[in-house]
Amino acid sequence: MEKDTIAAISTPIGEGAIAIVRLSGEEAVKIVNPLFDGKDLATVDSHTIHYGKLIDPNTNEMVEEVMVTVMRGPRTFTKEDVIEINCHGGLASVNRLLELVLSRGARLAEPGEFTKRAFLNGRIDLSQAEAVMDLIRAKTDKAMNIALKQLDGKLSKLVQQLRQSLIETVAHVEVNIDYPEYDDVEQMSHQLLREKTVEVHQEVERLLSMARQGKILREGIATAIIGRPNVGKSSLLNALVHETKAIVTDIPGTTRDVIEEYVNIRGIPLRLVDTAGIRETEDIVEKIGVERSRQALKESDLILLVLNYGEELSEGDRQLFEAVNGLEFIVIVNKTDLPQALDLEEVKQLAGNQKVITTALIEDKGLDQLEEAIVATFFAGDIDAGDLTYVSNVRHIQLLQQTMQALEDAKEAIDADMPIDLVQIDVTRAWELLGEIVGDTVQDSLIDQLFSQFCLGK
Amino acid sequence: MEKDTIAAISTPIGEGAIAIVRLSGEEAVKIVNPLFDGKDLATVDSHTIHYGKLIDPNTNEMVEEVMVTVMRGPRTFTKEDVIEINCHGGLASVNRLLELVLSRGARLAEPGEFTKRAFLNGRIDLSQAEAVMDLIRAKTDKAMNIALKQLDGKLSKLVQQLRQSLIETVAHVEVNIDYPEYDDVEQMSHQLLREKTVEVHQEVERLLSMARQGKILREGIATAIIGRPNVGKSSLLNALVHETKAIVTDIPGTTRDVIEEYVNIRGIPLRLVDTAGIRETEDIVEKIGVERSRQALKESDLILLVLNYGEELSEGDRQLFEAVNGLEFIVIVNKTDLPQALDLEEVKQLAGNQKVITTALIEDKGLDQLEEAIVATFFAGDIDAGDLTYVSNVRHIQLLQQTMQALEDAKEAIDADMPIDLVQIDVTRAWELLGEIVGDTVQDSLIDQLFSQFCLGK
Repeated sequence: MEKDTIAAISTPIGEGAIAIVRLSGEEAVKIVNPLFDGKDLATVDSHTIHYGKLIDPNTNEMVEEVMVTVMRGPRTFTKEDVIEINCHGGLASVNRLLELVLSRGARLAEPGEFTKRAFLNGRIDLSQAEAVMDLIRAKTDKAMNIALKQLDGKLSKLVQQLRQSLIETVAHVEVNIDYPEYDDVEQMSHQLLREKTVEVHQEVERLLSMARQGKILREGIATAIIGRPNVGKSSLLNALVHETKAIVTDIPGTTRDVIEEYVNIRGIPLRLVDTAGIRETEDIVEKIGVERSRQALKESDLILLVLNYGEELSEGDRQLFEAVNGLEFIVIVNKTDLPQALDLEEVKQLAGNQKVITTALIEDKGLDQLEEAIVATFFAGDIDAGDLTYVSNVRHIQLLQQTMQALEDAKEAIDADMPIDLVQIDVTRAWELLGEIVGDTVQDSLIDQLFSQFCLGK
Repeated sequence: MEKDTIAAISTPIGEGAIAIVRLSGEEAVKIVNPLFDGKDLATVDSHTIHYGKLIDPNTNEMVEEVMVTVMRGPRTFTKEDVIEINCHGGLASVNRLLELVLSRGARLAEPGEFTKRAFLNGRIDLSQAEAVMDLIRAKTDKAMNIALKQLDGKLSKLVQQLRQSLIETVAHVEVNIDYPEYDDVEQMSHQLLREKTVEVHQEVERLLSMARQGKILREGIATAIIGRPNVGKSSLLNALVHETKAIVTDIPGTTRDVIEEYVNIRGIPLRLVDTAGIRETEDIVEKIGVERSRQALKESDLILLVLNYGEELSEGDRQLFEAVNGLEFIVIVNKTDLPQALDLEEVKQLAGNQKVITTALIEDKGLDQLEEAIVATFFAGDIDAGDLTYVSNVRHIQLLQQTMQALEDAKEAIDADMPIDLVQIDVTRAWELLGEIVGDTVQDSLIDQLFSQFCLGK
């Protein structure tokens, strides 16, 4: 356990009704108590909240009217003593409170340091700690559900089960070799390892198969809208932004700015690649050429290619098809309210096995089908964040991929009748890689780097 | 006491470590308890905090990992039962919590409704309620101190003392008239009323004499920078913004956007009239004429008129002097690093009794003197928010001015030997006006209007 006591503002910065300065560490009570004009915090029960005034001992002046919550470790978020000072939520106010506790011996917490302590002190594992941040950043309910399950330890449990079964097999094999009951111990061991390797491999494969969906629910579908001028790109953008439910509920006081780049399509966050960029895609292909356009568009998960039903397919349109070839895209034939001039058969041919939707956005027609198509592109059947354990974190996905590779290496070694020792090296590596997900086998530098992405006060 | 239970998000909207949904009202515990997977909140001690999970009873799914604080009335902010649900601070998360409690019978609180209940339930008076909002909006420590003193009841106490002494005198006079001990009861009463009226008048006058300073500490000095092109207005703006201490301390994570229009000049917030406006003042006089410029400039508390030391006084400069004539302004003769071309004597003559400062902002010279001049313009001697009770609220200032008028009317009536009854009407009016400050004699519509300016969740 680290010895120093950390402090930070734990509520978002801004004008609000309540702001919180949080402290964690051995000295938390000792630092706040002399400043507090109210009950003696050293003797109050744990997990109680107390009204009082915070006094600056240098001037003997009241700094704020506060409610102080005392929570003694280990039954706290960090497992250390935690003090939360709730004050009237002004910027000047909360800054002054923080300055005061810092001047009395607390150290300004680094981003994520409270959660890091929760991890280092063994209250949560690494994947749970990461879930805390996901929860804060969740853009939709479904993304939140994934984070919640992860925070609840669902992923940790699954990963630990896989690790346990790998390490047990390795141990079992070693015992067999040291105290062989049968003569064909080598062959037996190979068979045992092979079975277990295949079993875990399947499970990891299953997790990874849903990882893309998990990642999409967590981070949103990066979507680019492209098309020649005047085909209806702006109408599409407006339709998506205005017609769909906003990411957060319309509660007075919530800022739309925070979320305006996301739209919620049936629970999936669609992250619209910056509008300026979208506007400029009009002539993106002409400007930078097909090949470079492809590179730029590759960064999107989905491209919405808009065509005009009232015009014949132009050379520009054909270049767009070239640019998106091989990428995930949906063709939107807009303006079906106009007399047909577009050759739909040709469009379908160019689209290959990608979907073609017809819309008349100006008359609000076709948006439903478009939404359906978007969802179907990424999710077969229902989107269900309910029972499944989604892996959504890029770090986890990479570790699972490496785990799968290690297990494949093991399988190959077994099939090639390599010595058991060599096979065990691969299996143990898979065990270690899984351990990195939950933080059992992980380097300090990685931990520092992970937590530094957290927000302040968490 | 109102019967329904209100709920709102009480932390600023944004990504943060902790977000709070607050409920107040009789049903608070009853609404949250069935959602809470943890201790039975109906039986826990008051002012305790409990870890648990919030479960959506419709789906039986976990909505969030939470800490729930139970505070039973009347020992709470609103004097009602209060529940605070602390959750991981994501937007999706906190919105879902709020939706859930709203679906279970809580009503979305109006802005300021928690504080309004604190007032209606008699925990704080109106001036204290207003101080709560001032505290949240305070831009500097000094502004915060004024709000804190007001919240602490310093102003209320003073006002109540004045009211008490007025009403006692009125009562005393009435008794005298009903049961006269002496023959010259009319004259005695007049004298008594006169003494008290003068005494209270002096006190109100004293309060008002500091009100402008209080208002400035609270709201900042609305400052316009004017001058012909290329005299150094931008340099001045930059110097003020960059060289002075920012309004809030430089704590990582605090957003400068929130405060960028304010600069802190020795504890006084200088509110720079919008920069776009400032840039356009270059030719404001030419464009809209002297008289209309005057009108526009009148909205500022202070005008910084910048001249160029290296150029002769132009017709444009003279027009600026005309436009600011009679207003509060400081002349800044900038670019003293250039060879002198400006006739300083003429400038001083045009400035009259307003200050003239010479600066070479490009060489960082003269800013100290300018700051000193700004402070001296509004504060004689030290700025002290320590011992004094500042009236800073426009509503209070207006009421005090009306009180003073009523007392003057009373004095005149006494001096004109009007009947005691008529004098008492004026004195009682003064008593009522003072009562409006603390909310003893105030109309519902005013209360509604006042609290509607609060932020949500307070």
